[in-house]
Amino acid sequence: MKTFNELQQLIASELEKTNWSKEPRGLYEPIGYVFSMGGKRIRPVLTLMACNLFSEDVQSAVNTALGIEIFHNFTLLHDDIMDRADVRRGKPTVHQKWNENTAILSGDVMQIASYQFIAKTDSTFLKPVLDLFSQTAAEICEGQQYDVDFENRDEVSIEEYLEMIRLKTAVLLGCALKTGAWIGGAGEEDAQNLYDFGINIGLAFQLKDDLLDVYGDEASFGKKIGGDILCNKKTYLLIYALEHARGYDAVALKYWLNISDEKSFDDKIICITSLYNRIGVKAICEDKMRFFYRKAIANLEKVAILENNKQELRNLAEKLMYRND
Amino acid sequence: MKTFNELQQLIASELEKTNWSKEPRGLYEPIGYVFSMGGKRIRPVLTLMACNLFSEDVQSAVNTALGIEIFHNFTLLHDDIMDRADVRRGKPTVHQKWNENTAILSGDVMQIASYQFIAKTDSTFLKPVLDLFSQTAAEICEGQQYDVDFENRDEVSIEEYLEMIRLKTAVLLGCALKTGAWIGGAGEEDAQNLYDFGINIGLAFQLKDDLLDVYGDEASFGKKIGGDILCNKKTYLLIYALEHARGYDAVALKYWLNISDEKSFDDKIICITSLYNRIGVKAICEDKMRFFYRKAIANLEKVAILENNKQELRNLAEKLMYRND
Repeated sequence: MKTFNELQQLIASELEKTNWSKEPRGLYEPIGYVFSMGGKRIRPVLTLMACNLFSEDVQSAVNTALGIEIFHNFTLLHDDIMDRADVRRGKPTVHQKWNENTAILSGDVMQIASYQFIAKTDSTFLKPVLDLFSQTAAEICEGQQYDVDFENRDEVSIEEYLEMIRLKTAVLLGCALKTGAWIGGAGEEDAQNLYDFGINIGLAFQLKDDLLDVYGDEASFGKKIGGDILCNKKTYLLIYALEHARGYDAVALKYWLNISDEKSFDDKIICITSLYNRIGVKAICEDKMRFFYRKAIANLEKVAILENNKQELRNLAEKLMYRND
Repeated sequence: MKTFNELQQLIASELEKTNWSKEPRGLYEPIGYVFSMGGKRIRPVLTLMACNLFSEDVQSAVNTALGIEIFHNFTLLHDDIMDRADVRRGKPTVHQKWNENTAILSGDVMQIASYQFIAKTDSTFLKPVLDLFSQTAAEICEGQQYDVDFENRDEVSIEEYLEMIRLKTAVLLGCALKTGAWIGGAGEEDAQNLYDFGINIGLAFQLKDDLLDVYGDEASFGKKIGGDILCNKKTYLLIYALEHARGYDAVALKYWLNISDEKSFDDKIICITSLYNRIGVKAICEDKMRFFYRKAIANLEKVAILENNKQELRNLAEKLMYRND
């Protein structure tokens, strides 16, 4: 069994081999830039780890893994345009460094490139991998659309929020694991249990993200604390607070959601955070996160392989839960 | 052999069956809108016609044909954002009717949908069809990038222009024909001859487009004459004129290219058109168009099937050359 770090290294070196120095430069250079910005490469590593549960030949899943990582980075590129985000991983986003048209078109060709890697999947698994990949890709767009829709709605239920993050974040983890499992030779039941493991880890992962935005440490989180609060992002925390704030808290929350002048930004973060603390949303969100985490571990337990061989995946799940960045 | 009209009808009814009334509405509704705007459906019909040259079973190529048409419409959607085009086929473009974010995201999911239809190609042909489709899709993005690059360059050669329109326009016609031929059971040589036929028809088609923008009839062309002139678009006509204008004409051309105030628009069109007439670019461009048209017909002649069975494709090629819209 290869370790997470070994597989992360393998993905890094395979990504270095991908050639983005093609003509026209204006189209491909931004893609090279995106990959030079780094990233944890969790999704492609999950593909290799799932493959490795059933086979020694992780190389056979590399192209599929790369396709998934390229697709993920494409979604970040287009999401950054839509969110008007100027910085990612401490560097200017593509539409900032170049322009919006470049970010649209380079993103489009990244999506095509992701399919070109997926198409290199061994012919035995090509059709199911291709179908799951496309279904997942469409679901991610649906999740992004719900996310946008929610910004313009007054009320969003916890249930709707969880479905949104399932689509926007969790399904790609599920897809990464299931395709890797297939390529490794897993049976359908094991592949599905790994998919479900990915979904539940993905949900827990996103709740952790919501928590880090408010309760993270600025230095290790790598971005400013309270970003979600400032833009009224309907996170698990805010949705729960909107549902449970009573009396003065309810009035104060409504008040702060209407404040968008920069001078009041620090106050807005302080006041909404202390309101969250009074309502106890941190503990509620952590509970929910652990609920999905436990479900994920239960999914993993059902996979019919030696318990010992699951240790790397279990470690990764734990790391994702207890991360502070 | 089915006629062009019969196959166009078949594509129209198959497109009607595609379901874009899914949730979230904000993501899928614009796609339904795009297809409700109509279009000649030339590319998917080419796929069916190429298939029909070798097989009675045109239905076997329908999903591939739809994938190609969906991809084509996706490129129009994203190109319209990049070109800031407000109207297409007499109706507001998606980014006008909704907004830019919607146009980006609905386009992204259209691209995925195009792959979902391509993936339904019979498994015998799936891998080559998928690879040619992805290669073509990437080339179309490259062509779009060159088109954008050319707008910001002072000099573009005729050769560079022809390569740009080969990528942006011609390769999708080639891909439509070659995939259809494969699915119909054609050998590699026939499939390649049909690809080349598509390339040359595509080049001639785009030169015709350049001509129609200046010399077309406004009523039948469906858009304002002189649009390319107003935005200094580097068409075959302008590139040739820039290369061959001498003395006063050269000075006048430079002068008008710097004019962008709306009050002078009518004068700009009249003056550049009369300059084109003095240099004789119309006849030169028509010659070049006929050159590619004849090459296309020669490609078609090499296809090893009964001459009689090529009549529909020959008619279509002729219609595309002598169209006035």
